[in-house]
Amino acid sequence: MKNYLESIEKSLNEFNFGDNPFELYEPIRYILSLGGKRIRPLFTLMTCHLFQDQFEKAIYPALGVEVFHNFTLLHDDIMDNAPLRRGSPTVHEKWNSNVAILSGDVMLVKAYELFLKSGFHDIQKMLSKFNKCAAEVCEGQQLDMNFETRDFVQEDEYLEMIRLKTAVLIGFAIELGAIIGGTDKDTSNKLYEFGVNIGLGFQLKDDLLDVYADSEKFGKQVGGDIISNKKTYLLIKALEIAKGEMKAQLIYWIERQGFDPREKVNAVISIYNTLGIKKLCEEKMRYYFQTGQRIFNSINIDETRKEPLRELVQKLIEREK
Amino acid sequence: MKNYLESIEKSLNEFNFGDNPFELYEPIRYILSLGGKRIRPLFTLMTCHLFQDQFEKAIYPALGVEVFHNFTLLHDDIMDNAPLRRGSPTVHEKWNSNVAILSGDVMLVKAYELFLKSGFHDIQKMLSKFNKCAAEVCEGQQLDMNFETRDFVQEDEYLEMIRLKTAVLIGFAIELGAIIGGTDKDTSNKLYEFGVNIGLGFQLKDDLLDVYADSEKFGKQVGGDIISNKKTYLLIKALEIAKGEMKAQLIYWIERQGFDPREKVNAVISIYNTLGIKKLCEEKMRYYFQTGQRIFNSINIDETRKEPLRELVQKLIEREK
Repeated sequence: MKNYLESIEKSLNEFNFGDNPFELYEPIRYILSLGGKRIRPLFTLMTCHLFQDQFEKAIYPALGVEVFHNFTLLHDDIMDNAPLRRGSPTVHEKWNSNVAILSGDVMLVKAYELFLKSGFHDIQKMLSKFNKCAAEVCEGQQLDMNFETRDFVQEDEYLEMIRLKTAVLIGFAIELGAIIGGTDKDTSNKLYEFGVNIGLGFQLKDDLLDVYADSEKFGKQVGGDIISNKKTYLLIKALEIAKGEMKAQLIYWIERQGFDPREKVNAVISIYNTLGIKKLCEEKMRYYFQTGQRIFNSINIDETRKEPLRELVQKLIEREK
Repeated sequence: MKNYLESIEKSLNEFNFGDNPFELYEPIRYILSLGGKRIRPLFTLMTCHLFQDQFEKAIYPALGVEVFHNFTLLHDDIMDNAPLRRGSPTVHEKWNSNVAILSGDVMLVKAYELFLKSGFHDIQKMLSKFNKCAAEVCEGQQLDMNFETRDFVQEDEYLEMIRLKTAVLIGFAIELGAIIGGTDKDTSNKLYEFGVNIGLGFQLKDDLLDVYADSEKFGKQVGGDIISNKKTYLLIKALEIAKGEMKAQLIYWIERQGFDPREKVNAVISIYNTLGIKKLCEEKMRYYFQTGQRIFNSINIDETRKEPLRELVQKLIEREK
């Protein structure tokens, strides 16, 4: 794990995004310096390593995925009017919205530059897959925004939204490693499906942690999604199965203006607990993680080669922040 | 001219940008439907036609350039808080800023998709050049925004800004046609320089028209740049050469809050006229157009093949809106 991460950080630091004008390029270095788990480029490198001893062959495309991911965070933060990202001011807060729009734009261009820098023989194939994925991520973000103004969202609509917004990029990160590693189409398709399932489990874990994390380990406010009425899997299921007085209580808290945040979080958690929502979400999450792992198991590769990827997935399942 | 334009409009209408969610894809069709002169894709097709009978070989990359250009308009309009684009509401006015940010993002992805659709054998080369150009266009926009908050901008800084923001994309559009047409490196480099010079002349013409256009033919308000104190070539030169009372008058009008727009426009035009600013800008513009045309003349191709490009440049020189 350490080798892969060092390789990612070193190459990210060495890549020259640009210098002038400062306001255009500094936000790119800034958002990338805020860290994050680098899950996506890790997946790319580790998947390439399944088929190639030289996993660094995939380093630039891996960075391309990470830069694209951070571009989406940068623009999403403007759209969500978010003040903080990983505990630090967001780019539009630290500079302004215009700087955030424009440095995001150039970041997307830089992601393509990193893909091209790979020297991979089939650029057409790599970029066609990336274009499809990038458009889907935008579709997911638009659906997420559309859901904000709706009273009810169905479970399957929600799952489709997180598939697009979050899961397909993890699928692509993994498939990218597979095609650079040089495996066959059937195997790279399977690995894509493995990634999408892990991505779905990953997002449901996110929904769970926002409510049920240990606040000391979580590193940010627990209950943020409840306070903002975010339509997570938990809220959608609660609205679906609550009846009578319980449903009235839930809607009361959703519609109430001017509340004590702690009181609202406790009240909604208490409703979730009565309805058994945590267990439902955990089951769904487990379903996706297990589906992903089953697909991964079906791929015929030496077990020792598979170890790093298994370890990474295990970390995602067990993560506490 | 008509053949090329028909080919552009037909292919643009036939290309499927996407359908769901509607709010993501409809703004793309909307902004492209507002028209515009399609100068950039015309340049790509005509330049390809210098070397290839089948100019349609360049149609998808030509559309890629046009889609990229409209993406920059869409995001620039948010940053400039512009209410109108080509006489119609801007995307962020018709929908909202979030929709405009996100549909712009996906538009940039679609531009790459169109480049890939070309079937051109050297995607790496095409996209490397495009990435460089796209980053430069962002740099130009950032410089333009930086200039807004400065009291003085030097002529050479301004020329560098418009080179980045406007001219390099015209250069790229032309070079793209050249490389798809299959010409040698020396010729395609020359054609790029031809395009950059035409682009610089084009922007100076824009600056001139905003002040000196015939308002009946112009189709939008004459004097908009003066009202908003936009640092065009005209204002920059006027601030550079005005002395004493004349300079004080100019600064008075720049700093004055609450004015009658007509009065300000007339007062500033009168200062420009006294200083001979129109002639200075026309000379500079002519210099770039002529430099471009001289480079074009130096390219050894049959004269009849060159005719459409000459005609297009002549239209740009003579345009009244």
